[in-house]
Parts: sequence; structure tokens; C-alpha cells
Amino acid sequence: MFKQLGIYTAVGFVALVLLLSACSEENTESQTDVSPDLENAVETAGAEEAPEVIKPHKGLDQEVTPLKMERDGSDVYIKMTAQITDIDIDDGDTYKAWTFNGEAPGPLVVVNEGDTIHFTLDNMDPAIPHSMDFHAVHTAPDKGYADVEPNEDGTFVYQASNPGVFMYHCGTDPVLSHIANGMHGVIIVQPDDGYPTDDEVDQEYVLIQNEWYQYNDLDNMTNEEPSQVVFSTKALHDGQPNTNGTVGALLDEPLEANVGDKVRFYINNVGPNELSSFHVIGTLFDDVYIDGNPANHQEGMQTVGLPASGGAVVEFTVKEAGTYKFVTHQFNHVQKGAVGKLIVTE
Amino acid sequence: MFKQLGIYTAVGFVALVLLLSACSEENTESQTDVSPDLENAVETAGAEEAPEVIKPHKGLDQEVTPLKMERDGSDVYIKMTAQITDIDIDDGDTYKAWTFNGEAPGPLVVVNEGDTIHFTLDNMDPAIPHSMDFHAVHTAPDKGYADVEPNEDGTFVYQASNPGVFMYHCGTDPVLSHIANGMHGVIIVQPDDGYPTDDEVDQEYVLIQNEWYQYNDLDNMTNEEPSQVVFSTKALHDGQPNTNGTVGALLDEPLEANVGDKVRFYINNVGPNELSSFHVIGTLFDDVYIDGNPANHQEGMQTVGLPASGGAVVEFTVKEAGTYKFVTHQFNHVQKGAVGKLIVTE
Amino acid sequence: MFKQLGIYTAVGFVALVLLLSACSEENTESQTDVSPDLENAVETAGAEEAPEVIKPHKGLDQEVTPLKMERDGSDVYIKMTAQITDIDIDDGDTYKAWTFNGEAPGPLVVVNEGDTIHFTLDNMDPAIPHSMDFHAVHTAPDKGYADVEPNEDGTFVYQASNPGVFMYHCGTDPVLSHIANGMHGVIIVQPDDGYPTDDEVDQEYVLIQNEWYQYNDLDNMTNEEPSQVVFSTKALHDGQPNTNGTVGALLDEPLEANVGDKVRFYINNVGPNELSSFHVIGTLFDDVYIDGNPANHQEGMQTVGLPASGGAVVEFTVKEAGTYKFVTHQFNHVQKGAVGKLIVTE
Repeated sequence: MFKQLGIYTAVGFVALVLLLSACSEENTESQTDVSPDLENAVETAGAEEAPEVIKPHKGLDQEVTPLKMERDGSDVYIKMTAQITDIDIDDGDTYKAWTFNGEAPGPLVVVNEGDTIHFTLDNMDPAIPHSMDFHAVHTAPDKGYADVEPNEDGTFVYQASNPGVFMYHCGTDPVLSHIANGMHGVIIVQPDDGYPTDDEVDQEYVLIQNEWYQYNDLDNMTNEEPSQVVFSTKALHDGQPNTNGTVGALLDEPLEANVGDKVRFYINNVGPNELSSFHVIGTLFDDVYIDGNPANHQEGMQTVGLPASGGAVVEFTVKEAGTYKFVTHQFNHVQKGAVGKLIVTE
Repeated sequence: MFKQLGIYTAVGFVALVLLLSACSEENTESQTDVSPDLENAVETAGAEEAPEVIKPHKGLDQEVTPLKMERDGSDVYIKMTAQITDIDIDDGDTYKAWTFNGEAPGPLVVVNEGDTIHFTLDNMDPAIPHSMDFHAVHTAPDKGYADVEPNEDGTFVYQASNPGVFMYHCGTDPVLSHIANGMHGVIIVQPDDGYPTDDEVDQEYVLIQNEWYQYNDLDNMTNEEPSQVVFSTKALHDGQPNTNGTVGALLDEPLEANVGDKVRFYINNVGPNELSSFHVIGTLFDDVYIDGNPANHQEGMQTVGLPASGGAVVEFTVKEAGTYKFVTHQFNHVQKGAVGKLIVTE
Repeated sequence: MFKQLGIYTAVGFVALVLLLSACSEENTESQTDVSPDLENAVETAGAEEAPEVIKPHKGLDQEVTPLKMERDGSDVYIKMTAQITDIDIDDGDTYKAWTFNGEAPGPLVVVNEGDTIHFTLDNMDPAIPHSMDFHAVHTAPDKGYADVEPNEDGTFVYQASNPGVFMYHCGTDPVLSHIANGMHGVIIVQPDDGYPTDDEVDQEYVLIQNEWYQYNDLDNMTNEEPSQVVFSTKALHDGQPNTNGTVGALLDEPLEANVGDKVRFYINNVGPNELSSFHVIGTLFDDVYIDGNPANHQEGMQTVGLPASGGAVVEFTVKEAGTYKFVTHQFNHVQKGAVGKLIVTE
């Protein structure tokens, strides 16, 4: 019925020149190491010795860039960056992540069903192209999710015509590297008519499950078990925590609720490889909306299975003061970090 | 609407003294090895040589303790034990399991929707604390699922307000060790209004899928594939088999039905790590209730996906005499034992 | 209500004699190696050196046999073969597959709800028995899915009483070997009353996801990650592609649709071990029927989780010209080949 536009701004190949000068700035030890061949521009320190940081990324730690979002009626203008930023993924273990806006998972995006999204990706990565794949929209991926070259930007227009809790991620090849290195997040499309249980909900949070692997090691990402499996939250309301995909983040900075509250989690398992068996210890989900669509209602569930990139809205009532942990009930992943806390007080 | 009570009986720390004397009794070879440091009180025989049995568990094989359950109106008084008991998991391969009541999976618990459960855990394990996490109830886990110290007991009160086929398990850290060592089972909460298909059902059985790993080896449990994947049954009616999580148990002692019967399985995949793709060879599920909730009805399914700790009620009709095997259709797990039999006779 | 017949034609043990003469013909280098013991009749070249081809299969590459299917009212007569045929699974990597009719996955079978299937399996494999397990039917497996010995045939009768997208596979022990070596496919049972969205659908295709492992290596199949994960299609309408489980098949020979089309995929994840998180990049599923049953309707899903042997009908609308890739969103499996293309033109 409605039309969608896919606009891709290809500015040219100034990027490589910029990249080379960027490399020169970074690489103070050995100018001769600079290679214009990006395919090979990795530190070949041996798989056992060190993770592979793409040379132009060495020493790079770009500051977190706030998400820009403006609304004009049902037209929403969103600007995000692709950038290289250090993320603490496990008590002092820093990961030079490929990110959206310097966060991993990237910033939360919330729009309304039927909105037209005007999305601009500013690729601040000096080395490689990136792109944006919003699971929430309809678009020809070779246009709407097209690569944006280093140090360029691209603008794309599409509609968010379905409500839900959707994954977004970089869709540039190899996609596994881009997701596993940190380029993932959640876009919530709020249903026109809301959820049937909207009036009952007292607290709501966004949760994201993701895995980490050996640094930028595509073979490890493809063939091995994750090193860490973690939950993050992104602030849905003022004052709520905003955490990156760090082991223990949601133990140190727990979510909060009051006795008697009905709590809603918007959750997505962004993978890139593993499934989730999402469970909150000490309670049951009164209401579940699979993929966050109000039409897909389930009741009274102990655990919700989430495929890779699957989402859900889950709601439960906390009836006693205390500490409620949430996990994926695949407990090998709990051992690797997939646990957070909800503190319930009187 | 309703209130719940979480009562935790903490008796003290007599346990350690008892433990030390228990250690002395067990350890006849070398008294000097006895250490009060439980973290290190394991047999460090080298990962390649032997599984690690916690010292106070060495030689311990506590007799199966029948489940105690009494009803007074809608108040149900349940007493279970945590205990160390040898389980034959694979044709002569004995696992010194951490169990509820000496079974792994533990004994079946069946209550009614709306029941108040008064649960007492008698921790007969001389070495480590245990606890009970019923997925069927609402409670603050730090109170209702609190640890019970060795040789103590604890009583907890909560309500079973949702119908379904729920996992229960020990919730003491590290939870993966406690579940994988055998502390899991099923609690069925029967729906107030029953299932829509109750009148059609002729036979009903309880099935539980679980995995075994290298003995008490948390690293193996966390990072490796299971050694065995098995089905068990717990007798729902008089005369039905009650098996532990043993390879071949449900081949040697098959379930039974008559031609034309509608058979219902209450099933839960207690993990701890793997998902299940539950399937009965030679038939289809006419009716499926996800997590055992009558509201979550599906029809005509060949295979039901169960997340870790996910449950279901599945119903099917056997139209010919013969042998029907059930499996998880993840056939690598069938190779590791996940197969049982239903014999259908005229 | 209705009766079903299980007829198994056991002709005898002429097979062994035939097998021995077949072996003699193949084995030109060393007649003395010929052994009548099939259990040991494998090439013991050492696990590191080469995959194990059963001796009677060496050099065997039986021509593709077209599926035979005739209809007489609601009686459908289907004849298929079990045969050994070389399949190109990955750009020149040939797999001497155990197949139905020389394809892997095997040929598509489409019947109507309520049909009586008269199925004949012609086992052209000179070495080992095979069988057919249609997930679409009710039958006692020890009769309806009974083994057919080498160079024999067997006829079986059963009814397809449930609509859906069902897996079929060889059910001979060890089932994992038979499925993983290529004996799997899809049978669609068309619902009597159709799907509620039938009138909206413009294009429809059949997709099958399967994994490949080290050649005929049961240990590898049981314990290791797949070598390849692939999608295939089987022509549902004249002129549509028919591909085997080959890396890149659906990139080289993409599916097609027009702008504005509602596209339906009948999909099944035949495993044998892995789950699928099926997703089409650039769109959402307007309508999903879990296991292909019209009663199991979901809406607006980004990704559909498929257990091993799970099926679905998924429908989506392509609103712009371009290239839409489909994947399992478990991106380690995309790295191993699980990606295909839909080309949408004006």
C-alpha cells in the first residue's frame, strides 16, 4: 500500500586517503608497516599470542556519540555512527569493539508503528565499511542496508510498519564479524494500539543478550563456543541504567521494582550464534508477546525460547521484596556471564 | 492479590563440625588430607585421571528417601531431601549424583493450581549447601529459594498459582554444577479447569530430558558437549515405571498404551545446557500446550522445541499396534542416549 | 476412526550375494579385502587421512531417479529409491551421499490432507538397508517405517491426516548416519481448507536447511560442529530451481519475485543436529504457520525458530526491487553456507 524509499549517498573514495593518513598518525613505531591492502592490514601476531586488531584501529578509542533523533509528525530522523570504541566486557578485559555510537549493544531506538525512519549512518571507522540492518523495516537490503564507506555517511529511508522488539545490526560482510565485534542493538516499534496489558505495567526495561568471542577472530566466532554471554540494558526511561555487554553489569547495577509491580522486559537475543532460554528466577511470565507483537500472546510461561535475533515482551509480577536474578536457563552461559539482577523493595 | 510467605530456618553452623567428623570417618587412608576449606576439598587427581568427588562424598551412597507429601485443603506439605546417591547413568557407569531424594531426576511433585506449598528441604549432604527452586511458584529467590546448610533443614512457603509442567532444581551456586550433578526434576501444577482435551486422554506419562557431563567437572559442564543425553519417566499413576536419567532406561522399561489410545506426555527439558526438539516417531501431536498452560494451544505438530527448562503437554493418538520411539530430533543427542519406547498393543 | 495398513514386503536375503558380487566388481585392486561383514566393510584409511566410504559404495554413483507419483482419488501411489549418488556439497567438494532418488535433500512430495499414501521404497543401495519415516503420517514405525534390505523393495500404506510442512528421512539405525549422509527431505500435506492467506500469495517456494559433516563419520556427526550448513530448494512449480544441499546453490540460482508480491516459503530444518533461526533480510514475516498447520498462526515475526525437524509456512511482502538474502540468523552457520537469495524485480 505505502511506498518506501531507499536512498544511498555514495560520496566517493576519499576514504582511503583519509585512512592512510590516519594510519600514519597511529603508527608511530613503524611507518613502513602501513599497507593500503585492508584485507591484509591485520596484526599477524600469531593466533596464540594476541587477538587481531585491524591496524587502523590500533590505539583508536572514539568517544561515545549520543544518538540523535528528531521527530516531525510520523517522520523520524535518526543519526547514528559506526565507530571504534573500547568496551570493558569482563572486569578489566577491554574489547576494541566495532560499535554503533560507541556502545555495544548500541543505543536503544524507539519509534512508533507506521513511522517513516530517515536514517543516517556516519561511518567514523577509518578502515572498513559498515551498514545498518533494522529488522523492523521493509527495504531492499542491497539499497536500504547498503555499505557506507569509511569516513562517509549514508542516508536511508524506510517505514516501521510492524510492532515489536527488533534486532538491528551491521549487515556488512562478513556479518558474523560485525555483529560479534559489537555492532548490534535493539529497535522497539511501539504498537499503534499498545499491548492489551499496558495498563497493568508498572516498570519496564530493555534487555539484550549477546555473546563475545576471541577478538575479531572469525574462525573462533564460526567454530568455537562464546567466551562470554552477557545481558545489557538500555535506558528506556530517565534515570535507568544503560550498560554495555559486560559480565556482571546487571549484577553491579541492578534493575529495580517495588513489591506488587508488574514488570515488563523488552528482550532480544542478538546472538550472533546462540539461542536463549530466557527465565526470571522466582517468578513466571504472566504474559508473553513473541517477537513483541501483540498478536502473538502466550500465558504463564516459565521460560521463553528466543532464536538468534528473536525478541519478546515478557511481563511478570513481583510479589515479595528481594533479589530476582534473570538468566538464560542454558546454564553453561550463566557460567559465562549471562545473569542479571532485579531488586524489589517495599 | 494473595500474600506469600518466605520462611527460612537457619539453624547455625554446626554443619562444619559435622562435616569434619564425617570427613574423618570417610577418609581412612590419609587423615592428614582432611581440609576444612571446602573450596579445595576435592580430589585433585588430575583432570585426565579421574572425576572429582568431593571428599565428604567419597563412599557416600545415601538410600533413596520417599517423597513426603500431605494435603490439608489447599495447603500441601512437601518434604524432600538433598542427598548423595549413586545413579547408574549408562550401563554400569555409576555417577555419585547430587540428588533430591536419591533420584535423578528427583521425584515427581503434583499439586493443584492455587495450592499453597509448605516445602521442607532436609539437606542430608554433609558437605555443601543446597536449595530448591520451583519454577512453578512466585517467591523472592533469596528467601524462598535460600540455601540450606549441610545437615540442616529449611522450610519455605509459596503458592502455585499457574498451571504447567515446571522444572525444579537446586539453585545454589554454581547452579550449573548442582543441576548437572543431578538436582533437577518436575513439578506439575494441574490447571483448575483442566485441559480442553482431558476427556480424550487414555494414558498419561511424565518425561524428563537431561544431560550428563564429566563427573562434577564445572569446566566440562561449561565448555563441552554432554556425555549422555537421556530421558526419564516418573510414575504419574500406580504401577508406572520410575526411572533415573539412564541411557536405555526407557528402552528396557518402555511405556505402554493400547491401540486407539490418546496418549499425553507431560515433558520438561531440564537441561542444564541443551535445547530439545521433542518428537514421537510414527505419530504427530494432535494437541500441544506450551509450558503446559492450557492457554498456549498448538495443533498438529511433528516436533516441539523446548528451551532449557521449557515444558509442554503433548498429546497424540496411536492407531496401530507396535513400537513407537520418542527422541529429541537433534540426532547427535539420540546417539548419546536420548531415546525411549512406547509399546502399543491391541 | 480410520484404519491404516502397514505392509512390509520382505523378499529375503538375496541381497548379500548380490552385494558380494558388487564388491568384487568394484574392488579391482585387492580381491582379498572383500569381507561379507558389513559392520567392518569400511575403508579403514585412518580418521586423519580420508573419509570412510563403505566398500560396496566405492565408485558407485547411481543416476538420479525421478520421483514416481500417481493419484487415484485420494489414493496416492509414490515410488522412491534409496541410492548412492555423488552430490556436490561445496564448490567441487563431492559427497558420496546416501540419498532418496539421487538428491539430497530428496525430491519434494506434495499430497493433500486425508490422502492415503501407498509408498514403495526401492532400495538400490547394494550394501545396507534403508527405510522411510514420513513425519506426516501415523503408523507403527516398526511396521510402516521398517527397513528395506539392499536390492529389495518394500511397500507401506498410511494416511496423511494432518496438514503441514513435514520432514521425511531414513529411519534405519544409526539414524544420525542416514540423515547426515543425505537421506532427508520434505513432504507437504496441503490443508483441506487451505491457509487463511492463500489468496494473497503470489510466489511460493520450498526451502530446506540441512548440515553436512565429515564423510560418513558417526563420531564427527555426534560430537563436532557441522562442516557446512546449507539451504536447498525443491521446485514446487514448473520452471523453479531444484537444488541439492550445496553451499552457494541459492546464491548462484536465486529465487525470484516481483515488487509487491507476497512470497510464501514452506520451510523445514531437517538437521540432523542443529536448530535454525530462519530470517529473511529486509523484510518481516506478516504471517507464520508453525509446522505449517493453519491453526498455529503468528504475526509480524522477524525470525522463526525451528527445532530440528521443525517446519513452518512463512509469508512476507517484498516492497522494493533488489536482492533479499535469507539466512539462519545463527551467523556461524551463515559462515558455513546457510544463505540464499531472492531477487525481486519490477
